[in-house]
Amino acid sequence: MRISELARRGGVTTATAKYYLREGLVPPGELTSTTQAQYGEQHVARLRLVRALLGPGSLSISQARDVLGVIDDPGDDMFHALGAAQMATYGAVEDVDPSAALALVERSGWRVDPSSPEIFQLARALDALDDAGFTVPDVVMDGYIAAAERIGHAELEAMPAEPSAALRYAVLGSILTEPLLLVLRRLAEQHASAERFGQAPPRTPAAGN
Amino acid sequence: MRISELARRGGVTTATAKYYLREGLVPPGELTSTTQAQYGEQHVARLRLVRALLGPGSLSISQARDVLGVIDDPGDDMFHALGAAQMATYGAVEDVDPSAALALVERSGWRVDPSSPEIFQLARALDALDDAGFTVPDVVMDGYIAAAERIGHAELEAMPAEPSAALRYAVLGSILTEPLLLVLRRLAEQHASAERFGQAPPRTPAAGN
Repeated sequence: MRISELARRGGVTTATAKYYLREGLVPPGELTSTTQAQYGEQHVARLRLVRALLGPGSLSISQARDVLGVIDDPGDDMFHALGAAQMATYGAVEDVDPSAALALVERSGWRVDPSSPEIFQLARALDALDDAGFTVPDVVMDGYIAAAERIGHAELEAMPAEPSAALRYAVLGSILTEPLLLVLRRLAEQHASAERFGQAPPRTPAAGN
Repeated sequence: MRISELARRGGVTTATAKYYLREGLVPPGELTSTTQAQYGEQHVARLRLVRALLGPGSLSISQARDVLGVIDDPGDDMFHALGAAQMATYGAVEDVDPSAALALVERSGWRVDPSSPEIFQLARALDALDDAGFTVPDVVMDGYIAAAERIGHAELEAMPAEPSAALRYAVLGSILTEPLLLVLRRLAEQHASAERFGQAPPRTPAAGN
């Protein structure tokens, strides 16, 4: 198919498809003349993936390029590749004191690399709550830890055995399911509230519009 | 204190503090002359909260204004106020088919309002995964549902009894803890991976920089 068809099937404008090609997010098509190229189904799938990473996944162009680079060429060491792909999704971590984050990880009993960027992201998230004057009660923090563990175990259980499929699953699953998890949590809050107070929170007539 | 001191304590520039005042996100100080105002500790706390909503909370100026408006003046109906504040954090929902989202909610057994904006957000999150060609395995989706329930119950358990404190807790807790939850999940994935494969994913020497 031509680029206009590729763009249509990928759900973007032709200008956007050209931009992703120029940025190397979508591999080039097969040249059929000096000014025309043909694209296949794998290009459509890739374009849709790029759109998901940039949209719901909230990655920047360069983060998406790094993540896709690792998925396309993971090398021999899957653990290393996974770390590299996840690191690509984090911005530079400023100077932040990791001690509260390390204490929380110790409390959770998790085996994690204390120098991993997630520790610094966690420190930043805790700082932001402090700054806002919001304290997460202990019982809630324990709930968050237990919930995160439940998720990690379920995800690992379903991980494909083949290394490159596993990598794709781990990286994309982690990035692309974030909006899903956050909205499930909001719905579960609604449900817990309904259970406790015997009604779902009423909505204005504009709800859903 | 003067505005320069307010800005410093709130962790923003004076220009930014003035902007938040102009936008009505921070209430005006007490005028001490026609060109000067004095600010108190409550202004510092509010400025920090605004910064958290706009930064880690990822709200826009107008979303933050709506959320703060509900917290400042919740009216008599806390459920209504909670719904209004949460709705303020969602953009307009485009035309999206809610059937997959409704099926998922039915599978979870949750009592939620089927016309609530979260249903449409859920539908959009599921569509995005479909578009990206990523399937969440059933065992993982069940894990997400169980984890979300665990969170909702823990949060409700710790909810303050006094209505306006409860509203503040519910709204801010829901928005401000999102980055915390997402990074805890990444760490739990690392932990699950270490448990299964006997090692934490190694990181490059650049980790944490």
